[in-house]
Amino acid sequence: MSSPGSDGASRPGLSRRRLFGAVGAGALAVGAGAAVGRLTAPEPASVDTQVVAFRGAHQAGIVTPAQDRMHFVAFDVTTDSRDDLVALLKKWTEMAERMTAGEQAVPDGAIGAGDYSPPTDTGEALDLHASRLTLTIGFGPSLFERFGLAGRRPAALAELPKFTGDSLDPARSGGDICIQACADDPQVAVHAIRNLARVGFGTVAVKWSQLGFGRTSSTSTTQSTPRNLFGFKDGTRNIKAEDQGAVDEQVWVAGADDQEWMAGGSYLVARRIRMLIESWDRTALHEQERVIGRSKGTGAPLGEKNEFDPLNLDAKGAGGQPVIDTDAHVRLASDEELGGIKILRRGYNFTDGSDGFGHLDAGLFFIAYCRDPQKQFVPMQLSLSRNDALNEYIKHVGSAVFAVPPGVQDDGGYWGSTLFEGQASPAEPVAEPGH
Amino acid sequence: MSSPGSDGASRPGLSRRRLFGAVGAGALAVGAGAAVGRLTAPEPASVDTQVVAFRGAHQAGIVTPAQDRMHFVAFDVTTDSRDDLVALLKKWTEMAERMTAGEQAVPDGAIGAGDYSPPTDTGEALDLHASRLTLTIGFGPSLFERFGLAGRRPAALAELPKFTGDSLDPARSGGDICIQACADDPQVAVHAIRNLARVGFGTVAVKWSQLGFGRTSSTSTTQSTPRNLFGFKDGTRNIKAEDQGAVDEQVWVAGADDQEWMAGGSYLVARRIRMLIESWDRTALHEQERVIGRSKGTGAPLGEKNEFDPLNLDAKGAGGQPVIDTDAHVRLASDEELGGIKILRRGYNFTDGSDGFGHLDAGLFFIAYCRDPQKQFVPMQLSLSRNDALNEYIKHVGSAVFAVPPGVQDDGGYWGSTLFEGQASPAEPVAEPGH
Repeated sequence: MSSPGSDGASRPGLSRRRLFGAVGAGALAVGAGAAVGRLTAPEPASVDTQVVAFRGAHQAGIVTPAQDRMHFVAFDVTTDSRDDLVALLKKWTEMAERMTAGEQAVPDGAIGAGDYSPPTDTGEALDLHASRLTLTIGFGPSLFERFGLAGRRPAALAELPKFTGDSLDPARSGGDICIQACADDPQVAVHAIRNLARVGFGTVAVKWSQLGFGRTSSTSTTQSTPRNLFGFKDGTRNIKAEDQGAVDEQVWVAGADDQEWMAGGSYLVARRIRMLIESWDRTALHEQERVIGRSKGTGAPLGEKNEFDPLNLDAKGAGGQPVIDTDAHVRLASDEELGGIKILRRGYNFTDGSDGFGHLDAGLFFIAYCRDPQKQFVPMQLSLSRNDALNEYIKHVGSAVFAVPPGVQDDGGYWGSTLFEGQASPAEPVAEPGH
Repeated sequence: MSSPGSDGASRPGLSRRRLFGAVGAGALAVGAGAAVGRLTAPEPASVDTQVVAFRGAHQAGIVTPAQDRMHFVAFDVTTDSRDDLVALLKKWTEMAERMTAGEQAVPDGAIGAGDYSPPTDTGEALDLHASRLTLTIGFGPSLFERFGLAGRRPAALAELPKFTGDSLDPARSGGDICIQACADDPQVAVHAIRNLARVGFGTVAVKWSQLGFGRTSSTSTTQSTPRNLFGFKDGTRNIKAEDQGAVDEQVWVAGADDQEWMAGGSYLVARRIRMLIESWDRTALHEQERVIGRSKGTGAPLGEKNEFDPLNLDAKGAGGQPVIDTDAHVRLASDEELGGIKILRRGYNFTDGSDGFGHLDAGLFFIAYCRDPQKQFVPMQLSLSRNDALNEYIKHVGSAVFAVPPGVQDDGGYWGSTLFEGQASPAEPVAEPGH
């Protein structure tokens, strides 16, 4: 991509990382005398030198093939100064671009800031690779009540209605800003969120956060379908990045949709879904499969043979009963029953120890991206919350919705610049030096 | 190792897994018609077909090269029946051996138990490999107050004293039995603990559990030293499996030590150490390095060049001050200052969301194995808890100690059989069919 010093002025430090990345792990011992960067090769199993591009028309971390691990954080904005908030967003953008490239949050931040200053990178990712880290930012409805943003709030960013059975903990819900960190190495994701939270001190404060240990959805046809903690393949019918038509129709906001600043963006719905593991585990296989509407082993729809066989929602079995139950999860969540609605799922399994009653505090941290939550997630969840047979075994305990702005491009933009920089279209350069 | 059916009577189902393991990932599609086992290859990044042997003179998961992820659980025994407890230990042993081999907890347990029974394997690891899973059991002091075990309690298994600064949460401390699951894939570790907890219903109940997302120690010279959440390399001077002399002297209990049933076993000390991340992150690099006694970048002891250089505890710098501070962590934890004491560390980084005050609930889940905690961990921690400069930045919030029995061998033994089966020596077959 570039050689040391070639574009060091605009993005210092990136070049070195890219050099190492291009040369590969075999060259990692070279330069060990300098011993500052991520030079020590970890065990082969965790080596992942792949870098996901930070810049683009859309933010990374949405249609990017889902990484294995996640750290998600929601912030309250604690300042009343719009300038301070914008300054933080600019700073975050620089740090995010560096960290997703496998660099330290700040050039030489871990040990180069001078002996008598706190390090500007916390250091726990020093020896780790980029691990396909993506960082994705979103803005919650509450942010638009401040900073003169009321007129720019998209109609699609309404608060979610209360759904039947919701048991939401305010301490795990909402937030002015969210950042989703996904990576194949959890320490890389944790490091990124921690360093962004750290530099935000005085401007934002962590409201809640969630670690996900295993992905529950595929977002690419190159990935196999993983299993959730109910033991079922999850997300078989998910929108895949390769299906450009569905992505354009269901995920990306178009300029004409609503607020022009959201063109190329999306909306993120997060739901912390506690699974009542112990009840589920005492349920017969037949009932589990009836509830889901799929075979547990193969993931095939009931009545079919293979995972990716189409749902036959009209099939009748012995006695004229539908093969896929009328309340089966797969039926109620299907685009066939929802007038063509789909969402892009990007959830993660979580286990947060025990709940004090001898049960695992475990479940699914559901993340969905869609073009308009009011037209996609809300009708889907209204249907599911009323009738889904799965409701007996789950409890929604956290909820949040965020507007996810478009990607940062080579025009001096930053996270949220289309929102904060007036009516300039995303393609129009703002008054900052370009590259 | 074995072919299908060869020893199916004694260890049903293992043979198939081993067959697949031996043939390798390329053969995984063979038999997909059966579609029951872990047949679908996940993405190459997460493929780990390596199996750690379950049987041996010592339990696996102690000197085994530390896996990347951990799920640790402490149980209360809820039954008063010794027979029920022993029956569970036998059942657990079978399940543990199967799962560490990459098999389901029970043969065909996920979908083969019959439609109208609850599955006997919860299924979320169906498509995953063994991932070097190890399962390691320990018995807490409280267990020996029941079941007629009082006379067999080792003196080394005394409750730990209260250390200066301890801020222990009873809900995260103690336990009658612990199981440590380590694997390179967290879903494999979570699946194992969940299925062991599940089958224990009515006999044991989960008291507390902890997920660790990244290892903080190496236990083998084949591993590089990972970093803890303070950004420092951790465990540089750890006992390594390859140092047989140190392992024999510091880790394994000898028959003459105390209770004969513990010969070949060890003791496990677990401490949940919350790191006061935000205070640490505001501390100057110079102070961080003084507190630890090492350079942050290289991990070298202060005054030295390379990570594995010996500590020079007598070196004086400008003004005659010791180069490694008198209160530096590395000095106080050194065997030089502790009369030759060492421990085998096997800790993990954790992040459990936020603490409700805008701070990350993050830190180090410290695990140490030693031959006698009273002679090794206790004096070390007494010294550290009084004087360690690091105490300003950490808080011990959970604590437990367990006697870890020797490994299961091919003599009809099970987890804890040397404890529960009278005074028979571990090498002496008990009255069950051998192999």
